[in-house]
Amino acid sequence: MKMLEDKILQCGIVLPGNVLKVDSFLNHQLDVKLINELGKELYSSFLNDNITKILTVEASGIAIACAAAANFDVPVVFAKKGHHENVGNDVYTAEVFSFTKKKSYTVAVSKKFLSADDNVLIVDDFLATGEACFGLKKIVEEAGAKLAGVGIAVEKRFQGGGNTLRKEGVKLKSLAIIDSMTDDSIRFGVDD
Amino acid sequence: MKMLEDKILQCGIVLPGNVLKVDSFLNHQLDVKLINELGKELYSSFLNDNITKILTVEASGIAIACAAAANFDVPVVFAKKGHHENVGNDVYTAEVFSFTKKKSYTVAVSKKFLSADDNVLIVDDFLATGEACFGLKKIVEEAGAKLAGVGIAVEKRFQGGGNTLRKEGVKLKSLAIIDSMTDDSIRFGVDD
Repeated sequence: MKMLEDKILQCGIVLPGNVLKVDSFLNHQLDVKLINELGKELYSSFLNDNITKILTVEASGIAIACAAAANFDVPVVFAKKGHHENVGNDVYTAEVFSFTKKKSYTVAVSKKFLSADDNVLIVDDFLATGEACFGLKKIVEEAGAKLAGVGIAVEKRFQGGGNTLRKEGVKLKSLAIIDSMTDDSIRFGVDD
Repeated sequence: MKMLEDKILQCGIVLPGNVLKVDSFLNHQLDVKLINELGKELYSSFLNDNITKILTVEASGIAIACAAAANFDVPVVFAKKGHHENVGNDVYTAEVFSFTKKKSYTVAVSKKFLSADDNVLIVDDFLATGEACFGLKKIVEEAGAKLAGVGIAVEKRFQGGGNTLRKEGVKLKSLAIIDSMTDDSIRFGVDD
């Protein structure tokens, strides 16, 4: 999606450790107009997939998940990180390893909000090694729900998570795919 | 706002310790259509206040903040909880005590995203004792920005935070105000 690629080129900052900082528009400050366009684009990719629910994980997936959900007219469920007393105990959980923070955390979704009748679109801001996405996928499976697909704003394809999903036959739409990046260049790829 | 009061009466659950559980539509599963209406209502309350930025705190404030921001056509900044390595060190911070979790946490906003030129609307899903809101207010003051007002989905007025803000002369709009609640009744109040 050209609008997103342009924004990444204009405002993204490459940091050591394969970090692409997009905190000025995607995950600390939010460019809501852009994010609403991302939501529309995800809708056009999955509009024939009978989505009943959008699943994301707090915090930075919430904005884009809501932007997509407004088009599908379905609820968003966001998985909570860590053990929240007020989520209750009747939850689906998965362990997720964060390479950025170098530790594992639990994601949890109340069983009330995912069922075998659901056809779920997982949405997130980033897909790198895919740990968060695989955690959400495990939760969808635990609930007996169907995974309709995965919609991502920025995929760092060179970190492998997206290709694993593709090999598994998961329908994946990444709005910007980064094949490589250095301090002074970002090379985008296309879905193949 | 009648639509929100009706939803609270229909789906809210009162738990011991003054907890109102609204996780089926406001802070775990999200009723995006309702939340977009809340955003419009906040817009109509502050449309003449020259808002330049909406400030909230992760995670459950993000959806309603984005819904409001889409109407104002301004960015959202969400404060991050805890010390995030990837926020950087150049941050405004405040300590917030959570009565639900019975411990303090830090909220942080990168200095890049708030300046003395900003006229800030703080938005959050809940206002009870007001700790999170006072933390965000302190960050606005530290940045030298102007606080235009505070927009809240559900104020539990009997817990005092909202009245403190009103006494301080802060323009506060709460879309539902709860004056008291028991296991089998919730009494709403009006702004006075």
